[in-house]
Amino acid sequence: MNIEEYIRKNIDYSFQENELPFKIRQGKVKKGEVICDYNQIESKVYFLQKGIVQVNIENANKDIRIVDFFFENSFFCSYASLLTSAPSDVQIVATTDCELEEISAHELFQAYKHSLIVNQLGRYETEKLYLKRVKREKEFLTQTAEERYINLISANSEITNHLSIDAIAKYLGIHPESLSRIRRKSIQRIKKTNKLT
Amino acid sequence: MNIEEYIRKNIDYSFQENELPFKIRQGKVKKGEVICDYNQIESKVYFLQKGIVQVNIENANKDIRIVDFFFENSFFCSYASLLTSAPSDVQIVATTDCELEEISAHELFQAYKHSLIVNQLGRYETEKLYLKRVKREKEFLTQTAEERYINLISANSEITNHLSIDAIAKYLGIHPESLSRIRRKSIQRIKKTNKLT
Repeated sequence: MNIEEYIRKNIDYSFQENELPFKIRQGKVKKGEVICDYNQIESKVYFLQKGIVQVNIENANKDIRIVDFFFENSFFCSYASLLTSAPSDVQIVATTDCELEEISAHELFQAYKHSLIVNQLGRYETEKLYLKRVKREKEFLTQTAEERYINLISANSEITNHLSIDAIAKYLGIHPESLSRIRRKSIQRIKKTNKLT
Repeated sequence: MNIEEYIRKNIDYSFQENELPFKIRQGKVKKGEVICDYNQIESKVYFLQKGIVQVNIENANKDIRIVDFFFENSFFCSYASLLTSAPSDVQIVATTDCELEEISAHELFQAYKHSLIVNQLGRYETEKLYLKRVKREKEFLTQTAEERYINLISANSEITNHLSIDAIAKYLGIHPESLSRIRRKSIQRIKKTNKLT
């Protein structure tokens, strides 16, 4: 999917081609490449056509936590940095090889001054990011690591093919060994359920 | 300030009166009144003209935490519930007597279909909510309760006149006695600084 198809699907089905008031550039990044680094001021918005990216954060002890993943057909960037022009607190890294479309932040902000469709898109995407954050906070308050693991893999069934145990553990906020235990338990539980039905 | 003045100040200074494509109703709520309750589906958006409201959340042990405050001249509602039509996880309560303007969610969503200014406003407010959440998460990760207390009172100097020690402690996620200690320490520090300069 590209940005125009995404708009037709999610915002306005009657949206015509070449109506966007900014340029869209094609990009490719290799697995492991840094797309926006710590302390960089974000100047682009990306639409992920293929691949997975992850958002890292470092705590005071220099331990890395993964706070978010983005999958195919979604917009991403270091959004707080984009909105405030402050240095990024997070690092965005390609988890797999990725194909992207890129929009310049400057052109986006210009378009916000007059374009209905671009404001609808910006509002919709910000609502999605807000809800994702609310959901994650709630999960951390109310669910066990096992429940959060099952949520993650059921929402994105391919994820275990692309992410290392280590990456998933960093996202769930647990030790890789605890995750191995959780995975074994989940598999046993699924096998048991299959036998019963 | 009313909604129209807020739009002229923050979104478009050339915005004219009576241009908004929805009705605005005036409302008043008394201190302690529940504006949106747990499990209610949010159907309104409010603009706070006078007063303070707080957003409560209950954890599994039925302990109440205050996760947010809203002050004069800001929009608020149970936003995740408004966006998803799911029962509200939070409860919104008037911390003081309040004067409000109210918009119906249904009329707002209709306006999103065609109005540039309403989409600009919705995007701007969602960005603000998103950034507020990012800031609060970062503060919890990187600051002590004392630093968070000083941030809170320096951003909203009147807050201590309106909020009980208990409410501030519930917001900072600490015991009221710890807050009293922090307040004594902060006052001593301020007195010392004044003597030195």
